[in-house]
Amino acid sequence: MIPMKALYFDGRLAVREVDTPQPGAGEALIQVMLAGICGTDREILKGYSGFRGILGHEFVGRVVESAEKKWLGKRVVGEINVSCGACDFCLWGRGRHCPTRTVMGIVNRDGAFAEYVVLPVINLHEVPKSIPDEAAVFVEPLAAAAEILEQMKILPGTHVAVLGDGCLGLLVAQVLHHAQARVTLIGKHRAKLDLARSWGITAACRGDAGPPAHSFNVVVEATGSPRALDEAFRLVEPRGTLVMKSTFHQPAQFDTAQLVVNEVTLMGSRCGNFPPALDLLRRGHVKVRPLISKTFPLEAGAEALNYSETSTRLKILLAPAGKVIVPG
Amino acid sequence: MIPMKALYFDGRLAVREVDTPQPGAGEALIQVMLAGICGTDREILKGYSGFRGILGHEFVGRVVESAEKKWLGKRVVGEINVSCGACDFCLWGRGRHCPTRTVMGIVNRDGAFAEYVVLPVINLHEVPKSIPDEAAVFVEPLAAAAEILEQMKILPGTHVAVLGDGCLGLLVAQVLHHAQARVTLIGKHRAKLDLARSWGITAACRGDAGPPAHSFNVVVEATGSPRALDEAFRLVEPRGTLVMKSTFHQPAQFDTAQLVVNEVTLMGSRCGNFPPALDLLRRGHVKVRPLISKTFPLEAGAEALNYSETSTRLKILLAPAGKVIVPG
Repeated sequence: MIPMKALYFDGRLAVREVDTPQPGAGEALIQVMLAGICGTDREILKGYSGFRGILGHEFVGRVVESAEKKWLGKRVVGEINVSCGACDFCLWGRGRHCPTRTVMGIVNRDGAFAEYVVLPVINLHEVPKSIPDEAAVFVEPLAAAAEILEQMKILPGTHVAVLGDGCLGLLVAQVLHHAQARVTLIGKHRAKLDLARSWGITAACRGDAGPPAHSFNVVVEATGSPRALDEAFRLVEPRGTLVMKSTFHQPAQFDTAQLVVNEVTLMGSRCGNFPPALDLLRRGHVKVRPLISKTFPLEAGAEALNYSETSTRLKILLAPAGKVIVPG
Repeated sequence: MIPMKALYFDGRLAVREVDTPQPGAGEALIQVMLAGICGTDREILKGYSGFRGILGHEFVGRVVESAEKKWLGKRVVGEINVSCGACDFCLWGRGRHCPTRTVMGIVNRDGAFAEYVVLPVINLHEVPKSIPDEAAVFVEPLAAAAEILEQMKILPGTHVAVLGDGCLGLLVAQVLHHAQARVTLIGKHRAKLDLARSWGITAACRGDAGPPAHSFNVVVEATGSPRALDEAFRLVEPRGTLVMKSTFHQPAQFDTAQLVVNEVTLMGSRCGNFPPALDLLRRGHVKVRPLISKTFPLEAGAEALNYSETSTRLKILLAPAGKVIVPG
């Protein structure tokens, strides 16, 4: 076996030398160019999902080995849920909910914080030439943001509050702004709010007087913190929809009476299809380059995760193939 | 002022003599024939909504005084939300969510556990002759049950679990069974489950092996207890809908990760329109007579509320006008 470097978590996070994985039938070995650190990675370090193995589920890379010859050399991104393909969920086109699925870097499958990663070719999407690596690495979180439009109808003019000015919040705000919703991004970091304003999105600082109660048709919770639910319930109108994107390791508590009395719909939202996200990037409808705070070499992976903890940061990338990105 | 008897709550629950209310313009004075005790009444005694005044929001009565002459002598049921009629919610047909509404027996408005109650005539619905008082008194909770069909599409064949074999659960199960859903009622009282089975509804005892995880498209939580949420999340399929009907005084806690990861929609559901409920009763599609456990005179109102606490009971009625109902 050829050794490779990988950022491994087994209760302790460290870069290790491990065997380079071998692609089986219908699989591809992908050399990872760039990988993104996500809030879910930090939750895993706190115990979320009980994961042990190589972290990382946001990446762009190049196929270097596969029995499926047409994929060789292709620049790809990969859907993270690996489904059985045979159960009712898979047959009904909902493989992301396949009960026996593995999830790259989250559930029973090694991830992309490594020099190489293996995925079934059915999970891969070729990246158009016009999308550089430093944009393509955002396809996974952008697909998660765009999934809201798959799950519910957002009409032009819909008043939407996006809670959280982190990377996911800034992606959600852009996607819904592009869909002609009237978006207000609510966060607590002046620089991030100013970034949203530079795209024509209304932004408000949490803790200021803030928008009046029940003034939004839709509220998207993308803070990564269970404490935001109270504010989300305050902002959503009766019969409105509250979209919950964050996964926390700890349970959340809230006054369900306000859900019932105001007849609010609380909708969980996780991963989305990749093609709409690739299309948004190809057409330039969503800006991702300003979301890159810093790129670390893979060897500094543990340091990078630690660095990403600071709430003023946006996206932190790992560059296993030594790619250098100038932030901003 | 003419005195009347009423079941009054001001931290202490007692029958009192109070002034008979006077109907204003556009209002009617209604003599209460029968009134039903609801779980919400018991939650109010624990502090829910901070209500002080005459309890009761399920009733049937007869109009005895009104400037709107056409209502005089009519047998009526009444919608419980009294809205301003002028705000955006009211103008958009969502008066049940009017922010300045009062709610009979729940928010800033005296209720129907009294000899007489006042409501705007706009809230009244005449009861067809074919519906006896002891059925009409169920219109309010039956409307709440039927509201699920207003809020979401339930196709014939949809697999629905109804959690809770209390009065509301038995009404929801019947309404959805009539709408051709495949309903499983899950409760803990053999007699109540047998009642559902006698209507052709599948019923299962909670705590038995029970249905497999994620085996229902829709789960309706009608237990009145926040502890049921975990079981509801266990039963609902990924991308399924969990309808929450109970209002508790205390906040509920649950693992929101299962909401997000399984992309469940949690939908709060409260009051419904009365006409569909009256229609279901008129056509005999829903059985309510077997739900009556006992009728108390108004004077024994405090005792009746206490009696209703026992979980083997179903609907307990108060008969301010001395009406005698034979249970079952």
